[in-house]
Amino acid sequence: MPTAGRPRFGVVGGGIRGALFAAAIRQHPQADLVAVCDPDPAVRERAGTELGVPVQPDLDAMLAAHPDLTAAVIATPDFAHREAAVRCLEHGLDLMIEKPLATTVADADAIAAAAEAHGAKIMIAFENRWNPRFAEVRRQLAAGEAGAVVNQVINLNDTIFVPTQMLSWAAQSSPAWFLMPHSLDLACWLSGGRPVSVFARGVKRVLPERGVDTWDAITATFTMADGSVTVLNSQWVLPTSLPAVFDFRYELNTDTTSFRLNISDSGLTRYDAAGGQWVQLGGYRHYDELRGLGVDMIGDFIAVLNGAERDLPGIAAGRMITAAIAAVHTSLESGLPQEI
Amino acid sequence: MPTAGRPRFGVVGGGIRGALFAAAIRQHPQADLVAVCDPDPAVRERAGTELGVPVQPDLDAMLAAHPDLTAAVIATPDFAHREAAVRCLEHGLDLMIEKPLATTVADADAIAAAAEAHGAKIMIAFENRWNPRFAEVRRQLAAGEAGAVVNQVINLNDTIFVPTQMLSWAAQSSPAWFLMPHSLDLACWLSGGRPVSVFARGVKRVLPERGVDTWDAITATFTMADGSVTVLNSQWVLPTSLPAVFDFRYELNTDTTSFRLNISDSGLTRYDAAGGQWVQLGGYRHYDELRGLGVDMIGDFIAVLNGAERDLPGIAAGRMITAAIAAVHTSLESGLPQEI
Amino acid sequence: MPTAGRPRFGVVGGGIRGALFAAAIRQHPQADLVAVCDPDPAVRERAGTELGVPVQPDLDAMLAAHPDLTAAVIATPDFAHREAAVRCLEHGLDLMIEKPLATTVADADAIAAAAEAHGAKIMIAFENRWNPRFAEVRRQLAAGEAGAVVNQVINLNDTIFVPTQMLSWAAQSSPAWFLMPHSLDLACWLSGGRPVSVFARGVKRVLPERGVDTWDAITATFTMADGSVTVLNSQWVLPTSLPAVFDFRYELNTDTTSFRLNISDSGLTRYDAAGGQWVQLGGYRHYDELRGLGVDMIGDFIAVLNGAERDLPGIAAGRMITAAIAAVHTSLESGLPQEI
Amino acid sequence: MPTAGRPRFGVVGGGIRGALFAAAIRQHPQADLVAVCDPDPAVRERAGTELGVPVQPDLDAMLAAHPDLTAAVIATPDFAHREAAVRCLEHGLDLMIEKPLATTVADADAIAAAAEAHGAKIMIAFENRWNPRFAEVRRQLAAGEAGAVVNQVINLNDTIFVPTQMLSWAAQSSPAWFLMPHSLDLACWLSGGRPVSVFARGVKRVLPERGVDTWDAITATFTMADGSVTVLNSQWVLPTSLPAVFDFRYELNTDTTSFRLNISDSGLTRYDAAGGQWVQLGGYRHYDELRGLGVDMIGDFIAVLNGAERDLPGIAAGRMITAAIAAVHTSLESGLPQEI
Repeated sequence: MPTAGRPRFGVVGGGIRGALFAAAIRQHPQADLVAVCDPDPAVRERAGTELGVPVQPDLDAMLAAHPDLTAAVIATPDFAHREAAVRCLEHGLDLMIEKPLATTVADADAIAAAAEAHGAKIMIAFENRWNPRFAEVRRQLAAGEAGAVVNQVINLNDTIFVPTQMLSWAAQSSPAWFLMPHSLDLACWLSGGRPVSVFARGVKRVLPERGVDTWDAITATFTMADGSVTVLNSQWVLPTSLPAVFDFRYELNTDTTSFRLNISDSGLTRYDAAGGQWVQLGGYRHYDELRGLGVDMIGDFIAVLNGAERDLPGIAAGRMITAAIAAVHTSLESGLPQEI
Repeated sequence: MPTAGRPRFGVVGGGIRGALFAAAIRQHPQADLVAVCDPDPAVRERAGTELGVPVQPDLDAMLAAHPDLTAAVIATPDFAHREAAVRCLEHGLDLMIEKPLATTVADADAIAAAAEAHGAKIMIAFENRWNPRFAEVRRQLAAGEAGAVVNQVINLNDTIFVPTQMLSWAAQSSPAWFLMPHSLDLACWLSGGRPVSVFARGVKRVLPERGVDTWDAITATFTMADGSVTVLNSQWVLPTSLPAVFDFRYELNTDTTSFRLNISDSGLTRYDAAGGQWVQLGGYRHYDELRGLGVDMIGDFIAVLNGAERDLPGIAAGRMITAAIAAVHTSLESGLPQEI
Repeated sequence: MPTAGRPRFGVVGGGIRGALFAAAIRQHPQADLVAVCDPDPAVRERAGTELGVPVQPDLDAMLAAHPDLTAAVIATPDFAHREAAVRCLEHGLDLMIEKPLATTVADADAIAAAAEAHGAKIMIAFENRWNPRFAEVRRQLAAGEAGAVVNQVINLNDTIFVPTQMLSWAAQSSPAWFLMPHSLDLACWLSGGRPVSVFARGVKRVLPERGVDTWDAITATFTMADGSVTVLNSQWVLPTSLPAVFDFRYELNTDTTSFRLNISDSGLTRYDAAGGQWVQLGGYRHYDELRGLGVDMIGDFIAVLNGAERDLPGIAAGRMITAAIAAVHTSLESGLPQEI
Repeated sequence: MPTAGRPRFGVVGGGIRGALFAAAIRQHPQADLVAVCDPDPAVRERAGTELGVPVQPDLDAMLAAHPDLTAAVIATPDFAHREAAVRCLEHGLDLMIEKPLATTVADADAIAAAAEAHGAKIMIAFENRWNPRFAEVRRQLAAGEAGAVVNQVINLNDTIFVPTQMLSWAAQSSPAWFLMPHSLDLACWLSGGRPVSVFARGVKRVLPERGVDTWDAITATFTMADGSVTVLNSQWVLPTSLPAVFDFRYELNTDTTSFRLNISDSGLTRYDAAGGQWVQLGGYRHYDELRGLGVDMIGDFIAVLNGAERDLPGIAAGRMITAAIAAVHTSLESGLPQEI
């Protein structure tokens, strides 16, 4: 039985991310995990067994079965955020929405309008803000300890495993929609800046040949409001032998300082008969507790729902990123720079 | 006013480590920080201001002023652990003791005897066990996912800053006493093994010339009970331009697998006019909360004091490490291998 | 006394690069170093002493004093190549020209026309082609062992030392003119491709504030004829504490393979009181012989002058790179993509 | 037809190393490759085809067929050096001998005695001395630019491929005999020092289980004549997924300076379907010429045979290393430190 006043969560989408968020909520002392919904029976069965909560085949069923929900996590495929989010908002729920907020500006606007209409608290899951490395760079820049930004060069790639085996909906997404929300949100958050225009170029050959009709690789050059430049490179066709499924290298240069971050190299390399890998520890167990970036993130959302003041990534950040990534695709099609 | 049943801590020694532990206790929801003692007036003043708790000049004064203490942290210089620990144990306190437990086997035995006599709970602060990288290697080895250990080669060094500027009592310690407890405890904990003999060689030239009469560098080769070999290299005279004040590289090889860990490289490098550094994030702030390995460690000790079951590094591990490091120094002097 | 038929070299410009090339020619068994010219008396004095050859204050004086010259090295500032090169070509000399060939297309065309008119052999000093790492990547790609290129992301930067202390003529150049000829030539040479259009963005703030009126940082995205994308990032304002004066990281991805090269990390790091550095070994002495990339390069040019067949970077490559870098600057000014 | 006075080489052993040396001699303008001998018909056929020189099944046949030989390369298995070397010396040949000189002190002494009796020029193939990184460290130390050595920690390992697939005679060798001659010679050559005693520990489990009766891993701690300490770790059971077949990391620390070398990381990483690798460039082709460390090394030996003065690794260095590695094995068996 839920404790009065604590947030009571439903999780929409029980895939990799949804299951992680559900587990993090379940173990949190100041929140309750009430239910999970997912259209896939196998996902539902696993979620029911592992999490020990009721599962439903769709959001409407979950909302109907659990009128006591006060919050939801939106962890559907990216393009399906709008419908789920608006529906939840209409039911008066607060929301944590997986990045990107939406994959069209119209969708982002619709969610924003619904959020405003219902006075909901919303956090967009820009999880990298919880990585202490990025938080420290932001702190140093904000404190005036590291000069003024000249440029940022950010490589965030996945191996071809992601669009061909991990995501069933890769053709409805792109390396820009899937990866650049992370890198662009960081670029803005670290520097306190925002993008005003973008030029993008890409290659679309390898994935279409493998039956996934989307971009292989995209490069986007953003002019920021402060005159600095942000370069994002994201691709989806790296060999699966890379030491991690993602490949994340971040460089931020100012007039006095250069920061270099390697996020995929965890500091722990394992070589065995199957190859070499950087063992990922973004989520891990300590005794019986799940820990890591996603757990920290959802903990701060729960804190806010319980009344704390925290500067979390909200709907405005989510809209800005969606608009900017939409502009990346416009530029890819037009061959011209695009205002944001 | 303390909540009944919660541990009430005094911290013995308000230096770098003592202050960290005090702050971690102070913010913990299931424990109370009652007082800190330190002989240095400047340390006391800082501790009093930053922590907002009473400070005393010595342990007796603290024990007298705070008869309600139930636990203590021993963060004195290494060689002074025995007196402080035994005194606290006689007062019925549970203890977290900074590594190494003691710098002689006699001291370790005395603490162990007192702990047993008083039924105290004791944790030795082998903090690296809380690093998720090491915990994951241990998990994989314990689960049979990584073969049987052949050897471990562990480099854990400090720059010359540590013995010449950070520690006032370096001449009463050595790179072996200060650094090898970390590396040897990990070697045992990861593999489930223990050292049975050791041969050590060292150099004693640079630090004595600079007025610190101790070893510059020590290499110790341990034979483990399972027949594997552990090599520890620790030195105290590295240039201060190294990207971190410590230099920690760990290699563990089995018949099937090789693990390579770089602990000092945090994944965040900052270059500026002062040089290049790996920004350390072992302890950091998230909103108003202190986080990191030390905080996690003390959290588990508090959990145990509050009744949880956790497999923490106890007095047996502390004694074994002290005996082994004492044997390192015996071998250094005798030029012969030494049983442990 | 020169051996009949062997190339007899004059070196135009006795700075860092000119002095290196002169020394490499002097020690070569199949060529003669005849003279060096430079307007700076200090440079002339050093060149005369170290190289033991006549020095003149300008090219005309050198040509007049040494009518037996058959070849020259053009190692003037970049913008001055045209005048020196054309003058040498009119005297019937073969030429090795430091990259870039020229800093305007008109200059490049003028040199090309003169070269054709006089039937001269010309090599542009794209020295990185002599780095075995790049040569091996090219070999693998050409042999069909590494798939078809998707994209290349190339970071080639200098610390602020270069534009503010090393080059007197930095304001007449830019990170694009000084650095991108290296990276773009490699991008073309490795892949067998050529750029067809470019979009560039830059920042111009730090160097102007320090009295050097040029770009701090430039990013250029090239579409290649084969549809692949090449991204060049070059900047001139990195902190001088970087482990090398240049910062060169190269990434080439295909549909099957990812190559990652770190060129500035030499594999030899030295830490001392002055900081940490990657000791550079691009040029070094072995017994009394100068060795390295520049020596290998000039050796192949001498081989060709002596009749060998070698596929060296010629005037066409030089023109293409000059045209492409000129287009980078056009795009920087127009804010639009630029055909090449 | 050979040019009078030039060295005329026979190569004893046509395996990987012998074939490389033969090719390097064949292309050298101041030496002649006359013949190669090897007991393996397949090796002989390949050598005959690739090198275009006569091949014989054994040394006696080669010496009989080619009385004009003036020099030989000894590239037999390690344990067979003595017989081949002494036989060649009796025929008046100068010798380049693959490291180690021999695997017993008696063998080394026999070769040394024969060399002295016949006045032969001998070079031991400690090839790493030709790596510019090591040469530069030696230069800096010799020039007083890098302080006085405190210790050296050298890891030189192979994957299990080497003892189980590459070498047919691994059971007659060990990681110490095969790898430590490289690392120990460097330790002496860089520092100008020599080892006076050693203590070694090892593991012998994995390779015997796989039918190769030798040590898996050996650690040897040397006391040097100047009081510094050298630690060598060498093993033969690393996973084959390591990015190179060898794993070579070198650390030399002085009172002022720390040198860190990574030799196996070539600066060129290739990821593809088969895994990740550091593409090795120790030997490579440039146009039609073989280049690399081995080629440079044999070039200097030829220079000396042709009258040049060069400080090459000679019989004294070879004997010292053999004596030291023999002492490693004595210590392994006795469990005690061993004088050298």
